[in-house]
Amino acid sequence: MTQTPQFAAFHSDDRQGYGLVTERGLIDLSARQGVKWPTLREVIEAGRLAALAEEFGDREVDFAPGEFHWDIPIPAPEKIICVGVNYPDRNEEYKDGQAAQSNPSLFVRFPRSFVGHEAPIIRPSVSDKFDYEGEIAFVIGKPGRHIAEADALDHIAALTLCNEGSVRDWIRHAKFNVTQGKNFDTSGSLGPWLVPFTDESQIADVRLTTHVNGELRQDDRTSRMIFGFRKLITYISTFTTLVPGDIIVSGTPTGAGARHDPPLWLVPGDEVVVEAEGVGLLRNTVAQEDPAGSRS
Amino acid sequence: MTQTPQFAAFHSDDRQGYGLVTERGLIDLSARQGVKWPTLREVIEAGRLAALAEEFGDREVDFAPGEFHWDIPIPAPEKIICVGVNYPDRNEEYKDGQAAQSNPSLFVRFPRSFVGHEAPIIRPSVSDKFDYEGEIAFVIGKPGRHIAEADALDHIAALTLCNEGSVRDWIRHAKFNVTQGKNFDTSGSLGPWLVPFTDESQIADVRLTTHVNGELRQDDRTSRMIFGFRKLITYISTFTTLVPGDIIVSGTPTGAGARHDPPLWLVPGDEVVVEAEGVGLLRNTVAQEDPAGSRS
Repeated sequence: MTQTPQFAAFHSDDRQGYGLVTERGLIDLSARQGVKWPTLREVIEAGRLAALAEEFGDREVDFAPGEFHWDIPIPAPEKIICVGVNYPDRNEEYKDGQAAQSNPSLFVRFPRSFVGHEAPIIRPSVSDKFDYEGEIAFVIGKPGRHIAEADALDHIAALTLCNEGSVRDWIRHAKFNVTQGKNFDTSGSLGPWLVPFTDESQIADVRLTTHVNGELRQDDRTSRMIFGFRKLITYISTFTTLVPGDIIVSGTPTGAGARHDPPLWLVPGDEVVVEAEGVGLLRNTVAQEDPAGSRS
Repeated sequence: MTQTPQFAAFHSDDRQGYGLVTERGLIDLSARQGVKWPTLREVIEAGRLAALAEEFGDREVDFAPGEFHWDIPIPAPEKIICVGVNYPDRNEEYKDGQAAQSNPSLFVRFPRSFVGHEAPIIRPSVSDKFDYEGEIAFVIGKPGRHIAEADALDHIAALTLCNEGSVRDWIRHAKFNVTQGKNFDTSGSLGPWLVPFTDESQIADVRLTTHVNGELRQDDRTSRMIFGFRKLITYISTFTTLVPGDIIVSGTPTGAGARHDPPLWLVPGDEVVVEAEGVGLLRNTVAQEDPAGSRS
């Protein structure tokens, strides 16, 4: 096949799996004879993304468009590490008088804080300061610690998109750290799919945009990232071993709702679209947390 | 059996598993006929901790003391959430003029940042500001979101200890968040075992101490925690669904090495002992990161 392959995790009424996305629909790889990996994480660990596309790309589709639901591409990565303040003018947005730092700011999100493409993202009942952040994410393929910048890109297996949905008043809810405001259940999205990483030209100068209800809110290029892909991998691997399936969310451009005056918070019914050239288009609609039945 | 059961994860030369710890040694539960859960996480999820102790507590030991190595009790929890600044005088230690906050500060550690009891904790090559933090940790047994304080303790399955080893100059390495200084591979420890949670009296007023080379450095009681166990569970479950096996590390008393003048950093060979009444004793010795072979 000539098209860049796209790998998605999905569920339907009666099964859950992963497959190849084509214009005709989805080819269910996880159901094929001889395919033995439970999720795309294990496919990546085995180094078999490209081989699966090669072997099964011409098969009949198992699900027509609309016959399946999109899940986050890797349901249980060992870690999801997010980068803060990584595009020009982002540091100034904080208006705290601090100079930009010489190292990337990092925080962690749990998989359950994300949904897949086209699933609703949930504005929680405890806040009306729900915000979007469009980002490019990459997935680690080759494990490593103390990775040199020269070798860093060899460790990337695939690219995807993220709406790093945030609850602003819970980001600075305590003395330190943004953990809680970044980890509301199903408050962000990842997807729609994984695009295998090929070479640096695929990520060096990609336009990244976020639209809310069709209005352009964020618009920048990866060439302007403060900490580039190589630097992020080298820096993070100084302290932790990166393993296949790990997801690094590389930061958002200026223009989130909080940065407008007055702020432009998301409300139920809003549609958020994150898009990057050569990666894809991630769309989600905002829904309100169900007040009933949520207490356990 | 009358003794409180203690459940440990372990490895030996030829196998990895979990078992019951007795004075005579370790009874390998994971090797017993009819025991079908791969790790203690699944045992807890099935609600079978107490039943396993009851059924197998009188068996012959499979490993004498010294014949096995201790692992972190739950090798792959969905999340490990740590609480910052949760004992009196801790806020003042920061000398930043800020009042204490009304909500707990939270950050995340990955399982690979921890080792088990008696395993070396590693001072990384990039820093000489390696520090200890003795803490009590608890493990979630019953899932829930929006958990009321009145019901919170019903969600605790077990208790353990943590040396929440920290690399101080990497905690404030960037504009926000402590992620990197709290996540150096094998820089902290969890264990030695899980003690099943029984009732509030077990945690309400427990003495927690940390000794370095036999010298008392931290000494406080859980009755003085700023945010108690109930409050932590209620607050955290406001944003994320807690699931069985999740570990919450409840904060450290004053007296970490960074709080001394001059600071008392850990050096290779130092022995750190975290101890809490009714929970156990967690001991680790500091080793230096191997400079060779660490680059991938």
